[in-house]
Amino acid sequence: MAIEFKVLKQCKRTGARIGELKTPHGVIKTPVFMPVGTQATVKTMTPEELKDMGTGIILGNTYHLYMRPGHELIMRAGGLHNFMNWDRSILTDSGGFQVFSLGNLREIKEEGVHFRSHIDGSRHFISPEKAVEIQNALGSDIMMAFDECPPYPCHYDYAKDSMALTTRWAERCLKAHKNTKTQALFGIIQGSVYRDLRRESARQITSLGFPGYAVGGLSVVEPKDIMYSMLEETVPLIPYQKPRYLMGVGSPDALIEGVIRGIDMFDCVLQTRIARNGTVMTSRGRLVVRNAAYAEDFSPLDPECDCYTCKNYSRAYIRHLFKANEILGLRLATHHNLYFTLRLMDKIREAIERDFLPELRDEFFIKYGYQMKNMQH
Amino acid sequence: MAIEFKVLKQCKRTGARIGELKTPHGVIKTPVFMPVGTQATVKTMTPEELKDMGTGIILGNTYHLYMRPGHELIMRAGGLHNFMNWDRSILTDSGGFQVFSLGNLREIKEEGVHFRSHIDGSRHFISPEKAVEIQNALGSDIMMAFDECPPYPCHYDYAKDSMALTTRWAERCLKAHKNTKTQALFGIIQGSVYRDLRRESARQITSLGFPGYAVGGLSVVEPKDIMYSMLEETVPLIPYQKPRYLMGVGSPDALIEGVIRGIDMFDCVLQTRIARNGTVMTSRGRLVVRNAAYAEDFSPLDPECDCYTCKNYSRAYIRHLFKANEILGLRLATHHNLYFTLRLMDKIREAIERDFLPELRDEFFIKYGYQMKNMQH
Repeated sequence: MAIEFKVLKQCKRTGARIGELKTPHGVIKTPVFMPVGTQATVKTMTPEELKDMGTGIILGNTYHLYMRPGHELIMRAGGLHNFMNWDRSILTDSGGFQVFSLGNLREIKEEGVHFRSHIDGSRHFISPEKAVEIQNALGSDIMMAFDECPPYPCHYDYAKDSMALTTRWAERCLKAHKNTKTQALFGIIQGSVYRDLRRESARQITSLGFPGYAVGGLSVVEPKDIMYSMLEETVPLIPYQKPRYLMGVGSPDALIEGVIRGIDMFDCVLQTRIARNGTVMTSRGRLVVRNAAYAEDFSPLDPECDCYTCKNYSRAYIRHLFKANEILGLRLATHHNLYFTLRLMDKIREAIERDFLPELRDEFFIKYGYQMKNMQH
Repeated sequence: MAIEFKVLKQCKRTGARIGELKTPHGVIKTPVFMPVGTQATVKTMTPEELKDMGTGIILGNTYHLYMRPGHELIMRAGGLHNFMNWDRSILTDSGGFQVFSLGNLREIKEEGVHFRSHIDGSRHFISPEKAVEIQNALGSDIMMAFDECPPYPCHYDYAKDSMALTTRWAERCLKAHKNTKTQALFGIIQGSVYRDLRRESARQITSLGFPGYAVGGLSVVEPKDIMYSMLEETVPLIPYQKPRYLMGVGSPDALIEGVIRGIDMFDCVLQTRIARNGTVMTSRGRLVVRNAAYAEDFSPLDPECDCYTCKNYSRAYIRHLFKANEILGLRLATHHNLYFTLRLMDKIREAIERDFLPELRDEFFIKYGYQMKNMQH
């Protein structure tokens, strides 16, 4: 087996658990947040900076890497780890979500998806077999099955057919997967926002016997209470001893709520994306450091944070960097948001360990007045 | 005195010398290359990265900092060092060159320069007194007198009047300078490409008794042989025990040639600017890593370089980052170019110390086939 997963402790008052996920590139404490390195780089960051803040696993995007620089080039470079100088774990998605996001540029058929490149308009085809072939070439520690991610909102009938297609594709992915000794392939549960479809998808996908399971299609769902309901419906049907991954979700509130519902793994572009717009996460909610209000504010982004950015730079300086279009501003804000999120995961694991996760949740949401409504997931 | 300068050794075969420049923020070995931090940041880099590669002094641009975020804000932040988290030395230019570069947006008069902001078109006025006031607020270790930098080419009569104006402005700067104990004010020698004007300017400016002298207006001169002639004319007239700074010049070949002609200090945006266009300096000349030729080249940018970039990343990866518009590409290329240049300065100082500077020059230009013709200065 490419990975080993152990649940170390189950929270008595919620569905949360702490665990250890062992891959060929290291041991990861769960619940874990995985920074996203779409194009073989976590935007603005070096691998050393990510490791210094405790990152154990990052995500790479199969669609993007297939399009540019190409999976065969990365294979010749010795795989994605070697290509990007990252010696810890990598999870690659299947490309399903990105291809789904192409909208009119793609056509979904039983055999796979025909689409046009977002870069040059060239024609491409990704099937379950192709998605596995690409990920085998990339050499990620954890691969994802090729799924159809339905839009939101989505009619019941479409969602049902889509869910069934995702199951048939999942079987084809399992058959196509070559490197089972060094790469673990996870299945993805779909079913849109329909409880019965989510349950049925969970039953079908888990019956195929993957080493780990993801809940997909919820990062496109706008209301978070729907996402949480779907998790409550789905997670209990996933084998207890397998890692559970909530795809594309990672706002601070959703991390806590997801963990409470039994999720072990998260990824999200939110941290790095809002950073590049001059918005940072703090213990008192979001702060738009670009705003004129911070022009002469010589305090750190978050007075409770001990990251490199907060130890060395003021809001006024970081605002200046953004106003002047200086790259260091993007670096400092990105660094802070990732550090903030990884420290939140530390706190969550500690809270599970010491049985105060509900109190951590309350403190985080109430005492610190986190602006939940304003956060995307 | 804010600074102390000692010539430690004079090259027997050229005008080169090694020295030590002591400022309130440290001791700098000369000849020195100063990375440019135009807007209170050396583009893409953290202060720690600059220090790790041995940077002892950086340059800040008075015009840019005056426009944004404003020198008074920086003063309230505790000065430029504190604002940008840089605890080593800073030299600020006077804004003269930037204002000169505004072209039609500025009008030069005896009292100073009236101009419009390149950001919002607002009207401004910088006089010698104002340039000193701004630099006093910034708190740089070395300040530059406000000069007129004439265009190239330039008629003799214009150059002569301009040179005389620069002298009158230099006197006014000396009178206006408040913090002589913590900030050293350097004079600037002008005179375009006219030998007699350069000599006259050197005599006039040095007669005013500055703690250091710059040769200005040569980074706008296209043919390098003209620049070298002007240095040969000017440098011998600068008091031997004072530091000599060639403004805005810093291509590898010009660094060597400038040192040979007695220059102690250099600054240039070339290193960081070409890096952001995907061009790097190597021991075998320039390399445009964006080029398709490097798509599958898994060797480092410069096989002879031991910088962070060259130790960890391939040309193929860096090219991918540039093609994908990833910020890490700009970081890695900038890091390499600055490291390459600082190591070249190390080699130059060692060559002076051990009396083989002419041999270093020949080796650098001939053996390595440096593409001098293609380098800007």
